[in-house]
Amino acid sequence: MADQKKMVEDITSMDVDFAKWYTDICKKAELVEYTSVKGCMVIRPYGYAIWENIQRILDGYFKETGHENVCMPMFIPESLLQKEKDHVEGFAPEVAWVTHGGNDLLEERLCVRPTSETLFCEHFANIVHSHRDLPKLYNQWVSVVRWEKTTRPFLRSREFLWQEGHTVHATAEEAIAETEQMLNIYADFYEKDLAIPVVRGQKTESDKFAGAESTYCIEALMHDGKALQAATSHYFGDGFAKAFGIQFQSKENKLEYVHETSWGLTTRTIGAIIMTHGDDNGLVLPPAVAPIQVVIIPVAQHKEGVLEKANELKAQLSKSFRVKLDDSENSPGWKYSEYEMKGVPVRLEIGPRDIEANQCVLVTRHNREKTVVSLDNLPDAISQKLQEVRDGLWEKAIANRDKKTYKCTSIDEIKAALAENGDGLVMAMWCGDEACEDKVKEETGVGSRCIPFNQENLDDKCVCCGKPAKHMVMWGNAY
Amino acid sequence: MADQKKMVEDITSMDVDFAKWYTDICKKAELVEYTSVKGCMVIRPYGYAIWENIQRILDGYFKETGHENVCMPMFIPESLLQKEKDHVEGFAPEVAWVTHGGNDLLEERLCVRPTSETLFCEHFANIVHSHRDLPKLYNQWVSVVRWEKTTRPFLRSREFLWQEGHTVHATAEEAIAETEQMLNIYADFYEKDLAIPVVRGQKTESDKFAGAESTYCIEALMHDGKALQAATSHYFGDGFAKAFGIQFQSKENKLEYVHETSWGLTTRTIGAIIMTHGDDNGLVLPPAVAPIQVVIIPVAQHKEGVLEKANELKAQLSKSFRVKLDDSENSPGWKYSEYEMKGVPVRLEIGPRDIEANQCVLVTRHNREKTVVSLDNLPDAISQKLQEVRDGLWEKAIANRDKKTYKCTSIDEIKAALAENGDGLVMAMWCGDEACEDKVKEETGVGSRCIPFNQENLDDKCVCCGKPAKHMVMWGNAY
Repeated sequence: MADQKKMVEDITSMDVDFAKWYTDICKKAELVEYTSVKGCMVIRPYGYAIWENIQRILDGYFKETGHENVCMPMFIPESLLQKEKDHVEGFAPEVAWVTHGGNDLLEERLCVRPTSETLFCEHFANIVHSHRDLPKLYNQWVSVVRWEKTTRPFLRSREFLWQEGHTVHATAEEAIAETEQMLNIYADFYEKDLAIPVVRGQKTESDKFAGAESTYCIEALMHDGKALQAATSHYFGDGFAKAFGIQFQSKENKLEYVHETSWGLTTRTIGAIIMTHGDDNGLVLPPAVAPIQVVIIPVAQHKEGVLEKANELKAQLSKSFRVKLDDSENSPGWKYSEYEMKGVPVRLEIGPRDIEANQCVLVTRHNREKTVVSLDNLPDAISQKLQEVRDGLWEKAIANRDKKTYKCTSIDEIKAALAENGDGLVMAMWCGDEACEDKVKEETGVGSRCIPFNQENLDDKCVCCGKPAKHMVMWGNAY
Repeated sequence: MADQKKMVEDITSMDVDFAKWYTDICKKAELVEYTSVKGCMVIRPYGYAIWENIQRILDGYFKETGHENVCMPMFIPESLLQKEKDHVEGFAPEVAWVTHGGNDLLEERLCVRPTSETLFCEHFANIVHSHRDLPKLYNQWVSVVRWEKTTRPFLRSREFLWQEGHTVHATAEEAIAETEQMLNIYADFYEKDLAIPVVRGQKTESDKFAGAESTYCIEALMHDGKALQAATSHYFGDGFAKAFGIQFQSKENKLEYVHETSWGLTTRTIGAIIMTHGDDNGLVLPPAVAPIQVVIIPVAQHKEGVLEKANELKAQLSKSFRVKLDDSENSPGWKYSEYEMKGVPVRLEIGPRDIEANQCVLVTRHNREKTVVSLDNLPDAISQKLQEVRDGLWEKAIANRDKKTYKCTSIDEIKAALAENGDGLVMAMWCGDEACEDKVKEETGVGSRCIPFNQENLDDKCVCCGKPAKHMVMWGNAY
């Protein structure tokens, strides 16, 4: 037990070294483990259970909106990857190449998918012939590979898990509506289920997906003031359709090209949860995706009736919640630390005196607030506490974002805001010229994150060149 | 619609060409589509939905028995693959090798996992230190790659989906019990949920998994008399533990090696379903994994009240079943063929006269039997029909297996049975000598499939050499 106590003591404080704090949590909460495969990691049961909850919820949203799951090969022949010019330029430098099958050199090398537009396009060309075949609303849950130089658990790794949606439509309007719909599904998931506020917006030309006509994104602010791209949704127009010959007979009997979208969300979502809600005691999980929503800790468990009661409560609560009863021989104090580290939203303490008084103690993880509640209507009390955790996390995250959003009308103002308050989300006007975008980044260190849908007119002039402004842009340092 | 009618006419009869019948179903029921990635396929929504149901059910069984899901990297460094001698010998000739990341040659090449024992072992060595860390009961749902020369949808492809369980235990007894438990879970799943009878047994020495001490398997008989290895469960002893240094401090404070298992089931299960239950009208799906359990076909749907009633029934039945209402403009006759092709277990027909009489017609896919049932208690009637389909499939499969199981006491008898009745499961005694195993295969064409747990003493002598028999072996031609 002396060993185990070290767990908590070992965590670096987030104010001392945020990066170290982050990797400490990844290890100590048993989310990941390193491997001898450079840049790749093991996602351990507790981390993977978070991902399973994310999958279950999102997959439900996708299916409600008419999407179907499929599975494409993990390999892409080099010639197929090359069919769309911008796309191959964007991805070829960072793919892993398979050159041999067994002892034989392959006639054509295959890349491990970095994303699957080309495979979906080939498939759509095979199965779409008539307007009656449209739309096709497909998704897949797989892993992809991008040969990153520097990696960090969840945030950037050579292999990561994600879902990629790929859809084809008869008209541009329909495809654009799909792109927007999926962005809103992501945003609602982040805000409602994960309690992470996001900015919805569009990437600038220089930052859009390789091959896309436009890229929408949601951007979240991490506790340290850095931005994180949380999900993207791309509108492709008919660019891929032309490159891959995806045509259909319209109602008017004309041969037309389809319009296409794709959209994705990855395991970096787990990184976003850690860096938005975590604290110096460890992980703090939003109830919707917490593998354990309620942990029951018996107090004086050797006393008569305590474990029986704890087991009874577990059986009762398991009907509505994900519950764990820890009846191991570790001390209650050690258990408190352990499940704080693991970010369990609600802790339920029950001892002999509680049982006598027909009550128990509930402690919410995010603020460590204790409430004594009656054992009558316990499920309602738990529901309420879980809602309090979600809402408490949301308010904390909103407050942090408000504090770290800087509206600026000059480069000097940007520099001053960042120097005074540290990293944050800078809102400033932009003329639309890529040269100005680059210059802002060069002079202030913050790059354009997106053009928020929610526009404000902070000024009539570009923050950089002083020419008439076209958009308010959100700038930031990003993960 | 003329186009669409062709769907059914196009299927090759199973008696004419079983292999062609199989691939016809794969295509026409829209389970898979070919790609330009040689040996790999697209699993289409209808095929993938079957897999999702398989996953959901099995994952439930795994979790009920205490297993947790994790995710390992898809790559294995060559040096890691080589750590266990038998294992690398078995797999190295059939792996895909990644040699380049972007434009750079890798220092060490990586194979795409053909199976993940080596990665799990490395991880176990990192996280297992004490008897308190045991057992670890892990599983992952991923795809793996084996560079097969000839491929067929679901049955043999270069990439396939599966789950692989990997567990470590303090004692050999516990590990053996786990190996058996998982084999029984697979067998029960096949028999109860898929209505496919299986033979439980052990592989002979020559046929066991590369690196295993013993391999258990379940073998199923396909409609054409060939056997299919449906799932395997391996006991590793401490062989991998020694190769990877997975040791723990025992309760008695001694440093000991763990005992290990692994077990897997793949998408070839979908092939087994097709080849066990399918017929000349297409797929026939066991209700437990059918993406659509009940399809509602409105008759004279333009007449007042028909679609309303059909929608009402859909809403009612969707609470308990996976239901589709096809209200497209195709004729009822076309729809009947379409959903027969797709193997939907129960068809519900409802027209104006049915509505007037407060009834509908239910047709079960496997025998095309029609029943008129009251709309009162419809969910009960559907439940009963689904059970009838499952039981009907089971009886048909059992009858086929009984017909095609040949008990033989000499090589000549084996040859005669196969010549007279075609492929099947041959039961015959064996002395345990590999030379005899090879000779039976050479002379009769059928190889050893397993040593069934359920032994019978057909004879005292080996079917081949006449020396004392050790086991009854099941022999067959296999997929």
